[in-house]
Amino acid sequence: MSFKDVKVIGFDADDTLWANEDYFRAAEEAFFDLLEDYMPSHSTARALFSNEINNLPLYGYGIKAFMLSMVETALEIGGKTLPIEVIHKIIQIGRDQLEKPVLLLEGVTETLQTLQKHYKLVVVTKGDLLDQERKLDKSGLVSYFHHIEIVSEKRKEDYLKLIKHLDIKPQEFVMIGNSLKSDVLPVLDLGGFGIHVPFHTTWEHEKVDIVIENTQFYHAEKLNDIINLFKHE
Amino acid sequence: MSFKDVKVIGFDADDTLWANEDYFRAAEEAFFDLLEDYMPSHSTARALFSNEINNLPLYGYGIKAFMLSMVETALEIGGKTLPIEVIHKIIQIGRDQLEKPVLLLEGVTETLQTLQKHYKLVVVTKGDLLDQERKLDKSGLVSYFHHIEIVSEKRKEDYLKLIKHLDIKPQEFVMIGNSLKSDVLPVLDLGGFGIHVPFHTTWEHEKVDIVIENTQFYHAEKLNDIINLFKHE
Repeated sequence: MSFKDVKVIGFDADDTLWANEDYFRAAEEAFFDLLEDYMPSHSTARALFSNEINNLPLYGYGIKAFMLSMVETALEIGGKTLPIEVIHKIIQIGRDQLEKPVLLLEGVTETLQTLQKHYKLVVVTKGDLLDQERKLDKSGLVSYFHHIEIVSEKRKEDYLKLIKHLDIKPQEFVMIGNSLKSDVLPVLDLGGFGIHVPFHTTWEHEKVDIVIENTQFYHAEKLNDIINLFKHE
Repeated sequence: MSFKDVKVIGFDADDTLWANEDYFRAAEEAFFDLLEDYMPSHSTARALFSNEINNLPLYGYGIKAFMLSMVETALEIGGKTLPIEVIHKIIQIGRDQLEKPVLLLEGVTETLQTLQKHYKLVVVTKGDLLDQERKLDKSGLVSYFHHIEIVSEKRKEDYLKLIKHLDIKPQEFVMIGNSLKSDVLPVLDLGGFGIHVPFHTTWEHEKVDIVIENTQFYHAEKLNDIINLFKHE
């Protein structure tokens, strides 16, 4: 284990610094209830997920995309008999979600406070530009970060661009997040370090079934467990 | 007239490099037609505009925000008697708009080709992250630019952040765009240069009624007219 060359630590935001997926789950449940006269929840869930994935290239990530996918799913399932009231309620579900409070996860402030003394910290988050900015503002964490990068995707090339922008080498970068697919694998692939800190729930689209054998890969149960990884450097 | 210190030239994208507002106007007309049994176009237009402005803090700029504002306006105007088909058609209007071709404005390629020889060129655009990235890709212009900045707003502080990021002084920066409000005034305010290149139509929200008296302000009828401004430096 050696982070001795690391200069910059990247943090994912949603479900790494604060809870987010829970709000999506609750919104989905409310949406399934709206359509229970038409379809059982698990079928509506499948239809919604399929629309979300198909819409990713067009709408991208984030709550507005989620709202539009819910509307489209309701139109498909309800057909001509869908009460207009359902659309009204979907809009309300989305608007409520956009105004939810930002609840920091355990140990976040302590971790950032400790690590900012020795490292440059950055946020790398994907999603809706305005919504991610708003959550960062609400989080009260902005001052810990040297740079905030909001991207439309977290692929290898997106990290490479960031690493170049930060004027460092991949092996001087460690990325921390709850998604193996978006936060860890592309960075390992570039020769950087990746730390997986799982959240209790993961969106289907972010799930990967993989065993990672890479000496630059770490796993932590809670965010503040990572402090020890850096401690004796 | 003196741009002698200018190092970086910033370009707005929508309605400066390519046509955009025309697509919004056409989409609006199609939307007004959907509701013509309920309200005359000019009243629907007022209701939509009012919703768009009220939704800006929550939804931001861009087509997804526009789609959601159209849905909300239709729900308000049509009430419980709104046919579900109208929602279906609104979604289709928005999806079509997201897939429109990017049509470069007159003189854009020539201007960028000429100016890139002596200046660092950047894009500063507001709107939806994914949609603006997609338009840039489709435009074929990406290689002319040193940096692309997609922001949620174009206020004085947003430009200041960019200018710091570019490691230049405000008087070394000139911004070019079709919106006095978003492209010109905030940059003049910082001590930079601003060139207004109007587009034939301007969204209501971007209109300002002002006479600018500032020796760092210029006006050009077409984008390639600006080449002459830089010519004898």
